[in-house]
Amino acid sequence: MIPYRSRQTVRFGDIDQAGIVYYPRILHFCHVAMEDYFAEALDLDYSGVLGEERFGLPAVHVEIDFLRPLSYGDRIEVEVEVEELGRTSVHWRYTLYRAGDDAPLATARIVTVGVDLDRFEKRPLPPRLRSLFAASGPTQPKE
Amino acid sequence: MIPYRSRQTVRFGDIDQAGIVYYPRILHFCHVAMEDYFAEALDLDYSGVLGEERFGLPAVHVEIDFLRPLSYGDRIEVEVEVEELGRTSVHWRYTLYRAGDDAPLATARIVTVGVDLDRFEKRPLPPRLRSLFAASGPTQPKE
Amino acid sequence: MIPYRSRQTVRFGDIDQAGIVYYPRILHFCHVAMEDYFAEALDLDYSGVLGEERFGLPAVHVEIDFLRPLSYGDRIEVEVEVEELGRTSVHWRYTLYRAGDDAPLATARIVTVGVDLDRFEKRPLPPRLRSLFAASGPTQPKE
Amino acid sequence: MIPYRSRQTVRFGDIDQAGIVYYPRILHFCHVAMEDYFAEALDLDYSGVLGEERFGLPAVHVEIDFLRPLSYGDRIEVEVEVEELGRTSVHWRYTLYRAGDDAPLATARIVTVGVDLDRFEKRPLPPRLRSLFAASGPTQPKE
Repeated sequence: MIPYRSRQTVRFGDIDQAGIVYYPRILHFCHVAMEDYFAEALDLDYSGVLGEERFGLPAVHVEIDFLRPLSYGDRIEVEVEVEELGRTSVHWRYTLYRAGDDAPLATARIVTVGVDLDRFEKRPLPPRLRSLFAASGPTQPKE
Repeated sequence: MIPYRSRQTVRFGDIDQAGIVYYPRILHFCHVAMEDYFAEALDLDYSGVLGEERFGLPAVHVEIDFLRPLSYGDRIEVEVEVEELGRTSVHWRYTLYRAGDDAPLATARIVTVGVDLDRFEKRPLPPRLRSLFAASGPTQPKE
Repeated sequence: MIPYRSRQTVRFGDIDQAGIVYYPRILHFCHVAMEDYFAEALDLDYSGVLGEERFGLPAVHVEIDFLRPLSYGDRIEVEVEVEELGRTSVHWRYTLYRAGDDAPLATARIVTVGVDLDRFEKRPLPPRLRSLFAASGPTQPKE
Repeated sequence: MIPYRSRQTVRFGDIDQAGIVYYPRILHFCHVAMEDYFAEALDLDYSGVLGEERFGLPAVHVEIDFLRPLSYGDRIEVEVEVEELGRTSVHWRYTLYRAGDDAPLATARIVTVGVDLDRFEKRPLPPRLRSLFAASGPTQPKE
């Protein structure tokens, strides 16, 4: 199964005083990729999940390796993989590439945990979401 | 009456590819100055107004003149003036200075309108807020 | 001539405490639209103009009317028009729509001025850029 | 030796659709804390280091644990510690607290590597910077 890739462009305002992408923006690119993954790989609006089911997936742990600097105008692809599904958690892996280039620019592992947005308490993944995740990737739920 | 000034610093991530402050950040500096004005000039948390009174002041009109570029590390002061109080509207004027310098870097006029945050409909300024604004500045309500 | 439109999506992180798009982000959407306009309407990378010609177009004046709030997940189209070309200035008009909807969400007029990026002094529009602008829109240079 | 703390405030625009701080902003808070640490703990402007010495410290690795959500209006303190000094690298540890509260909100370890900003190649820490770091914290250089 070919992992999903979100296509994005490094914008004028993403750059910092050192002339490269301000590194918090890399995390933003990952979040945008997750939103695109919901819309295009799962055919589900994350905004709808949040609004109607009052279910969200805030990050609890992040690890990023910045391998090469990103510059203004770069066309990038952010590969999105769900590495592990727990009862309440989703483990994501993001790999950023410059379009047409095989050497990663950055990799990130992000652990998100399902919460009830009204009470900000842990909540198991809704069954529909679990099925969609499972169908699109990892087959062995853990946790 | 000396207008209130919010002290801020231009940060590494505020800079764009041209090496100056990315201009949407100037509007952010104005919003931060408004938040500081609530806290320090009115002795009121804007977060509390939003949360408890469900009253907000979204912008409906903005005009900005960018007179001089802002650079990384600049210490700036954002002068905040309430120019006009309507029944539901507040007209703000912001003037940005480099600390210790009399020549403005930028000026902005922003019109905000009171809304009920649950329904996003116009709502008159709460009396307490009107009194605080009036005491801190303009004396001739209009509209 | 049909004006160019940049397609964008309101992202999770564009939202503010009031639950709508943080208004400085609207200016960011306009800048992104200008970048897309260079790439798609003029077939020119703005990053290349900046990098190779050391020519930039910082904003000197902005006027925005916010007509309707933008929400998370909104698919928007930002119409870009060059209203006036001066010797050094470009007057832009941006109109934001929700995709498939005729009522504008916001309109902005932004005046940018050509500068030499190394000295941050005014510089006339490079001839190639002037020709491309003229071909794609307004025909009566002023100033 | 008491570690340095940078005082910051969670702003209106730092919030996301879930009503908490958008997590890339936590990394921004860490960067701001590093800038404050340079200015206040080392008595050195990071902007000057970048501009005059053409030396920068981009991140190559980041690990963050988000322990508690941050909300609009929170007054936070970001504790900054230099855990390890290499020949070219600096290992930072950031711990975020709500002011007056002992339970951390988030912790981050960030590895930065010294680079020549003109060529984006590794460069050893300038001696003056090494001395200042050593005097303000860790005593056993490694790497």
